[in-house]
Amino acid sequence: MPITKIKLILLAILISTHLFSQEVGQMERILSPEISANNEVTFRIKAPGANSVKLSGNWMPSSPQGQRQLVDLVKGPKGIWSVKVPALAPELYGYNFVIDSVTTLDPANLKVARDGTFRTENMLYIPGAASDLYWAKEGPKGTVQQIWYQSPTLNLTRRMYVYTPPGYNAAKDNYPVLYLLHGGGGDEEAWPTLGVANNILDNLINSGKAKPMIVVMTNGNPGQAAATTVTPPIKSEMQTPQGMASMLFEKSLVNDVIPYIESNFRVKKNKESRAVTGLSMGGLQTQNLSFENPNLFQYIGVMSMGFADLSRFGINVDSSKRIQQILDLKKAKPALYWIAVGKDDFLYESVIKMRKDLDAQGFKYIYRESAGGHTWTNWRVYLSEFATMIFK
Amino acid sequence: MPITKIKLILLAILISTHLFSQEVGQMERILSPEISANNEVTFRIKAPGANSVKLSGNWMPSSPQGQRQLVDLVKGPKGIWSVKVPALAPELYGYNFVIDSVTTLDPANLKVARDGTFRTENMLYIPGAASDLYWAKEGPKGTVQQIWYQSPTLNLTRRMYVYTPPGYNAAKDNYPVLYLLHGGGGDEEAWPTLGVANNILDNLINSGKAKPMIVVMTNGNPGQAAATTVTPPIKSEMQTPQGMASMLFEKSLVNDVIPYIESNFRVKKNKESRAVTGLSMGGLQTQNLSFENPNLFQYIGVMSMGFADLSRFGINVDSSKRIQQILDLKKAKPALYWIAVGKDDFLYESVIKMRKDLDAQGFKYIYRESAGGHTWTNWRVYLSEFATMIFK
Repeated sequence: MPITKIKLILLAILISTHLFSQEVGQMERILSPEISANNEVTFRIKAPGANSVKLSGNWMPSSPQGQRQLVDLVKGPKGIWSVKVPALAPELYGYNFVIDSVTTLDPANLKVARDGTFRTENMLYIPGAASDLYWAKEGPKGTVQQIWYQSPTLNLTRRMYVYTPPGYNAAKDNYPVLYLLHGGGGDEEAWPTLGVANNILDNLINSGKAKPMIVVMTNGNPGQAAATTVTPPIKSEMQTPQGMASMLFEKSLVNDVIPYIESNFRVKKNKESRAVTGLSMGGLQTQNLSFENPNLFQYIGVMSMGFADLSRFGINVDSSKRIQQILDLKKAKPALYWIAVGKDDFLYESVIKMRKDLDAQGFKYIYRESAGGHTWTNWRVYLSEFATMIFK
Repeated sequence: MPITKIKLILLAILISTHLFSQEVGQMERILSPEISANNEVTFRIKAPGANSVKLSGNWMPSSPQGQRQLVDLVKGPKGIWSVKVPALAPELYGYNFVIDSVTTLDPANLKVARDGTFRTENMLYIPGAASDLYWAKEGPKGTVQQIWYQSPTLNLTRRMYVYTPPGYNAAKDNYPVLYLLHGGGGDEEAWPTLGVANNILDNLINSGKAKPMIVVMTNGNPGQAAATTVTPPIKSEMQTPQGMASMLFEKSLVNDVIPYIESNFRVKKNKESRAVTGLSMGGLQTQNLSFENPNLFQYIGVMSMGFADLSRFGINVDSSKRIQQILDLKKAKPALYWIAVGKDDFLYESVIKMRKDLDAQGFKYIYRESAGGHTWTNWRVYLSEFATMIFK
């Protein structure tokens, strides 16, 4: 039953919107996406005037040239286009429709997430073991706060998201803190939305697989007070890659964010109770933070980033300085240095280089290689694993 | 300069996304919407394969039959369609494109909001005096928390948003509390997104026009644990209008929400320090809450809702009981009973009926009539005014 007719007169008194309140008559609701019992998915859209409707999902293979191979929807009665795709593995997917060459959302699916400065896409959750941590399941849940704090280092009032675990308010305990960094093009909303960090932590903590912890999700672009959808960029010269090269984000995390968290939350204020991990640009920042401050973090996770040649961004690493940094961090003996990357990641070679350089100094780390590439699919898995290895 | 070419190779190292990471080459960025110095706005979209592109903005007039009069975009070079609309008054607008009959988002504008269960739309902020409260301006800012709490009344773990004012963490004071209710089809995300309640409160408090207060934004649908984009509806028989008729939301606010807030935040626990206001369905709930609990709230605001005939929803008000409720509330002497409605609101007649019934019992209230209809434009204005009249 793909279409439900709703008598709008029944809704007229209830609706809180300018447009529909003026309308009278019948309204069609298209059911899309529709997930069958065996996880086949039917996508539908009413587009009587369209010449072509395609589906672009992040589960689809790409050509050797990197073009995703889109799937055609077929036009049926009443101008409703549809396609049923074969059973999808459990995962939190992103997708769009492409209508007459324009990438658009599925208007019937209100689950929407913004991927940094790139696009807005629909979310599709296929339940199952592999995606079980990503849903807001029954059980106690932590709190996510949008906090504005002073950053004297950047001369900005900035925004971050802070997760406190289930029971934080009622407890008297002090908690350890994970600093969780996003990638280039992203902002402080990346991990709480596409990364579903709060669901992952709730579910791991409730099942006893992770220790209760506070998770701090900052904005890693030193030229921004907050996501550009919230406030305009204030220092455009500090947008990445210039901002990345400035190392100002790393300084502000140490000088502004950590003191704020340690003054305003019930946290344990020692190295053993601090962890940091980040993906891509945030992986670089994680490297920088731990090399520059070898005694600050006990648990360090670098996701989808190695020792890449970043000279085009004005980032030049002196090789003897790098060796000294590795030796200093080795001496500081962090309990965990974890490197995770997908086999198809375009930064895979940089991770090989990093491992080689670390091995040359006898620096111990754990290496985790997954399938796939530079994707949120991997980063959610990496967070799910990293969170179980820390504060134990 | 509507289009910016970005060398993607420059971004390759930075990007945190599966799709673009595989691509090489040039990427076009369309500038849309572009606001000129005199507030004319140019909308653009690249749609080489489209037959027709229209703009649907909530500032546009509707026909007498209630159809919004859309504006055509014109196809130009490289398949880029555009239109410049005359200067818009300062406001926070919503708009969509309609491409070959499909309502879609502007892919170049990442400012997106979900209007309840109705649609996802782009936001357009035109700065000026009338919209000055709606932006995250410089200055101290409050915190918005997403909190899950137990509701024994509904047998659910539910989500609400709680705003604490600038300085709450550092202060020792206890604060008054405003309970702020959304309309039918909405959920707990309505006021923090379309309603920009946190920006309005920050700006009013920072300018001394409103007292520092806590604002509690609940989910008014008793069959939902949270917005359906977060968790599926748990008790579908409790979806509105059945949920509205059940009065269970009102009971849960009194029995679950207020005790939670008064146990977990530094608040003043007396009638003088409690206010409630809501729009449309939330206006009905505000009426119910104050009639059923005449000594609970000192400040009461009913937005865009009067005494409507709701018998089709199973809501039948006994007229002698209603008179007694009015007399009981009159006796309780709330400091403010405020009724706000737009001249074009489809519920305008119900507000005339309400005023007549209140007048008949000599019940004192303040009546605020605005231009416009049943819109977020009005509800943002009403919150901006109501917040300055309470806790003084």
